Amino acid sequence: MRAYNFCAGPAALPTAVLEKAQQELLDWHGKGLSIMEMSHRSKDFVAVAEKAETDLRQLLHIPENYKILFLQGGASLQFSAIPLNLLGKNNKADYIHTGIWSEKALKEARRYGEINVIEAGTDVDGKKAITSPETWALSDNAAYVHYAENETIGGIQFPFIPDVQAPLVADLSSSILSAPLDISRFGLIYAGAQKNIGPAGLTIVIVREDLLDQSKLEIPSILKYADQAKNGSMVNTPATYSWYLSGLVFEWLLEQGGVDAIHKINQQKAELLYGYIDQSEFYQNPIALDYRSIMNVPFTLADAALEKTFLVEAEKHHLLNLAGHRSVGGMRASIYNAVSLDGVQALVDFMQDFARQHG
Amino acid sequence: MRAYNFCAGPAALPTAVLEKAQQELLDWHGKGLSIMEMSHRSKDFVAVAEKAETDLRQLLHIPENYKILFLQGGASLQFSAIPLNLLGKNNKADYIHTGIWSEKALKEARRYGEINVIEAGTDVDGKKAITSPETWALSDNAAYVHYAENETIGGIQFPFIPDVQAPLVADLSSSILSAPLDISRFGLIYAGAQKNIGPAGLTIVIVREDLLDQSKLEIPSILKYADQAKNGSMVNTPATYSWYLSGLVFEWLLEQGGVDAIHKINQQKAELLYGYIDQSEFYQNPIALDYRSIMNVPFTLADAALEKTFLVEAEKHHLLNLAGHRSVGGMRASIYNAVSLDGVQALVDFMQDFARQHG
Repeated sequence: MRAYNFCAGPAALPTAVLEKAQQELLDWHGKGLSIMEMSHRSKDFVAVAEKAETDLRQLLHIPENYKILFLQGGASLQFSAIPLNLLGKNNKADYIHTGIWSEKALKEARRYGEINVIEAGTDVDGKKAITSPETWALSDNAAYVHYAENETIGGIQFPFIPDVQAPLVADLSSSILSAPLDISRFGLIYAGAQKNIGPAGLTIVIVREDLLDQSKLEIPSILKYADQAKNGSMVNTPATYSWYLSGLVFEWLLEQGGVDAIHKINQQKAELLYGYIDQSEFYQNPIALDYRSIMNVPFTLADAALEKTFLVEAEKHHLLNLAGHRSVGGMRASIYNAVSLDGVQALVDFMQDFARQHG
Repeated sequence: MRAYNFCAGPAALPTAVLEKAQQELLDWHGKGLSIMEMSHRSKDFVAVAEKAETDLRQLLHIPENYKILFLQGGASLQFSAIPLNLLGKNNKADYIHTGIWSEKALKEARRYGEINVIEAGTDVDGKKAITSPETWALSDNAAYVHYAENETIGGIQFPFIPDVQAPLVADLSSSILSAPLDISRFGLIYAGAQKNIGPAGLTIVIVREDLLDQSKLEIPSILKYADQAKNGSMVNTPATYSWYLSGLVFEWLLEQGGVDAIHKINQQKAELLYGYIDQSEFYQNPIALDYRSIMNVPFTLADAALEKTFLVEAEKHHLLNLAGHRSVGGMRASIYNAVSLDGVQALVDFMQDFARQHG
């Protein structure tokens, strides 16, 4: 049987997607070979690749003046690729710091340009929150403003899109496709696939065309957005199987009713889990109400000594991967699109029983 | 039914490997989730990753003072990563030019250092060959000497490992694991996975430890061999599913008797195909005897106007992807490890019939 998988990434994929992939793994559409055994330039694969792009464009209502790139290397390689692509004409950028991932991004960017860091973390009644953009000391003339829309480890998420002058660049690795998004507000968004898109090894970059031609001289050619855009993300062989699987996830999302529909379910899931935590005296979430992530829910137990028991018992109930990130400890339930409301209900039921037994 | 697939890459994978992957796609070893849904840091995935590395080490007899890295981005990203990693102390390298891929590598390297290009292509009785290393004007003090051991497009391969002073760096994308290799002769070898290893999206780098700490300042952190070596190729999330599939291919290779055994079959395949081409008046291979690739066999027809008919007829016989690279035209049969002797026999039978009909 399939367990409930709360892994932060690589994360759960829809069972229906895996079943389809399984069915056509050895012989794709009667062609006598696997999709992963086909040239990326073959008519069949190009059709699969283009359909994935079209479906993603539809799902997020991506305007025509944005290119969608299917790249390799993970969001962490984008931490370098972004300044290398965008700081060639103007060497200055603002980075909003709200947690571990935005910090990694800004540390890497500092190696390539003049980086103005805005410390945007704050506390509200002992809970973590994000300061208002009006208080941010933004540069007059930054090439872009970067932020992590959802901090996967901290479980803190922006409830608004910052209104800034410079092009907005956002890491959406753990929140893309979880809720409607007004792409036209951004210069660039990027996301590692392994949360809401597909398997690890694929990275999506959505970039406004007018930002394509300002790369720095030292950029590795493969990382150049302009070249990848011109070549349909095939300057070299892309991660074809990951691209195909992501396409299956996009089809599945459209079948579910698209991003609006999945967002409603995501809201129900989040309300159920946060609602239970808030009324319990045994569990705690460290984030102020307005800034809670809809995808990653960190929580602690009243007695930290019970953590190991909690994880072992959870596993017996087929509730997997609930340990928090090794850098912060505690628990974390990642409730991405592929995690069902049933799964969250099963988790809450278990948490309730566990609290009763050990509280 | 499964066709015979002569694609140059992404290329054929062993049917047994795909069957195993298919069987455990939704539920890996009864754990209730797919291997692609697991954290790369989970005990289960780390065991899979380490076994793949151990098996590869065994297959190629890789000495202990070499690190094996499982990276993303393709061999083309290594065209930048290699100079960025190796030219930090000494900014000079020699590049041996024998075809399209070695040319791409040297063009990218020129962006980062002083590159001395050795034109090593030559003609022997109208057939392409490689000059002897004794004639090469190598630098006195290069940081490394780079060459492409097998030119996938040209179908030309080194019948020897060049004996040079500086550390030898070799692109083995299309020949790794096809024949025994004395790794101790190299400073670094690298290979995109999508020919003899696994699906596209994974790149293997095997690097001698003493070369790890000489990177250039501008290198993107994710590309730094020293950091990836220290972190078991997990500085960020690796391409976990590709890593797992490559591990299945390594297991399959060991079951076949290892590289020595597969090499014998590869020799039989090459002898069968080249032998038939050589005695035919209808087909031609452009490479001199000693320099023919054991993996990629380009050939032309007596009448180029028949190429389209040849491809259409071949497909009717379940012989797929025989078109040459778009940059050179003609035909090409890539006969990697996963292409069986039966497959090559079926190709030769078809070629014979086609020549009889159209010759």
